[in-house]
Amino acid sequence: MNLRFTKMHGLGNDFMVIDGINQPLPETGLPLPAAEIRRLGNRHFGVGFDQMLIVQPAQGPEADFRYRILNADGSEVSQCGNGARCFARFVRDAGLTDKQEIVVETAAGQMTLTVTGDEQVTVDMGAPRWAPADIPMTAKAEADSYIVVSGHQAWEVGAVGLGNPHCTLLVENVDQAPVETVGPLLESHEQFPERVNVGFMQVVSRSEIRLRVYERGAGETLACGSGACAAVVIGQRRGLLDSQVTVHLPGGPLQISYDGEGGIRMTGPASRVYDGSINVTPAE
Amino acid sequence: MNLRFTKMHGLGNDFMVIDGINQPLPETGLPLPAAEIRRLGNRHFGVGFDQMLIVQPAQGPEADFRYRILNADGSEVSQCGNGARCFARFVRDAGLTDKQEIVVETAAGQMTLTVTGDEQVTVDMGAPRWAPADIPMTAKAEADSYIVVSGHQAWEVGAVGLGNPHCTLLVENVDQAPVETVGPLLESHEQFPERVNVGFMQVVSRSEIRLRVYERGAGETLACGSGACAAVVIGQRRGLLDSQVTVHLPGGPLQISYDGEGGIRMTGPASRVYDGSINVTPAE
Repeated sequence: MNLRFTKMHGLGNDFMVIDGINQPLPETGLPLPAAEIRRLGNRHFGVGFDQMLIVQPAQGPEADFRYRILNADGSEVSQCGNGARCFARFVRDAGLTDKQEIVVETAAGQMTLTVTGDEQVTVDMGAPRWAPADIPMTAKAEADSYIVVSGHQAWEVGAVGLGNPHCTLLVENVDQAPVETVGPLLESHEQFPERVNVGFMQVVSRSEIRLRVYERGAGETLACGSGACAAVVIGQRRGLLDSQVTVHLPGGPLQISYDGEGGIRMTGPASRVYDGSINVTPAE
Repeated sequence: MNLRFTKMHGLGNDFMVIDGINQPLPETGLPLPAAEIRRLGNRHFGVGFDQMLIVQPAQGPEADFRYRILNADGSEVSQCGNGARCFARFVRDAGLTDKQEIVVETAAGQMTLTVTGDEQVTVDMGAPRWAPADIPMTAKAEADSYIVVSGHQAWEVGAVGLGNPHCTLLVENVDQAPVETVGPLLESHEQFPERVNVGFMQVVSRSEIRLRVYERGAGETLACGSGACAAVVIGQRRGLLDSQVTVHLPGGPLQISYDGEGGIRMTGPASRVYDGSINVTPAE
């Protein structure tokens, strides 16, 4: 079958976005055969993407849409702020809705997205979870920061759960941060039983940080939205940051807002790159 | 302006192919502003490609078309067998010609391409040039093989010029070949004043080899067409190979044919991936 798609990115985290409302794709199981998703994900032999995003009709009465995010290996991603922003822009550009506030069902639960114009979308990323068991992390008690020891080295990190586990280190200069060495070491440290995303944060002012994130299972990425939220709430808890913070990631800036109650609000761009059509083998 | 394009690949060497006959692009200088080519070439923020291929009207009376191949940094590529095959398939699929033998002007001179059906295209890659000055290589006299010394190590290589310089080493098992270590060492060895592409060839039989190529300035690639031709003629000259040889590259197989006269003929696939349209800033 001929499949129409739109290539989009949020700060360089790139998606093959597919309208599964006007195109006949299975709504459960894999939307395409696993081998076909792998082929499409390959950057030399296929379209190339970090994730495939499928827009589907909502299942419940309260939501406008449902979406699914798949890695090229067919595994499902539960939470992705960059993908959420691209989704919101896509459904408006495609004429599937003209709402500015869009309620969507995801694998991680229901989310509300607000299109604030000029390619910017605000995502409610949920409340931070500080209890070590909720991160999850092995520690005697909840604390503003923890000392993590490995061999003869030790690091002071803040840690928080945001759907996935995060820890953040303070660094003097993010350009020289030991992301490639300390990142993998902490990512698989025994104190984090489900591994952890590792952020390296340089505090520029009370309203501005620079951040690089070593993502669990992926290595350093251009823009980890939940990592940006984690760094900000960890910095706030240590008294270093105000409620509104600009986070400069390698892929570009995000605005993070959190006043200690409710969800962390993340605002950032969603960029449309091109429209495409490709011949694919449908699922059986 | 809205630019239509087709994404194609030849054994994983991938191209953004643009019809510059029916779309208004400058025929000299850069077809698009340099910053726009860089953006399009980026695999996260743009379309992503190894090279951009622009189809243009022929300038002389003997050719059917002209094409240009550009890297993402705007530099021009003179010779590319994988691109030539994609070009031939593109102009036929787009209805720009129905010829099976297509004559095309390139930055490296005029070429004849033969579409043999079933996605296969044959390219005349020109005659091998064996004289050291033509490779170019510093050596006292032309030889079947040369000993190249670096520190306490020495390698026996065959060397040939094919529009660009090539050397090829024989290895027992290509999977275990020291491509990442010996490749860069020979690539910039002082005996090759313009550097050299380095092939690691495992001879399976008189009509079959396995090959990995460390390309000048690019590192190991999926499928170096001229490297495949170089390996075959070097193997023939050393009495190891017949006139028709299947070359298994990491991206897939090529058929190389050379009987000691005229040009080396390379046959391989050209795969169409998808059609796209993208908004671009035109050149001034």
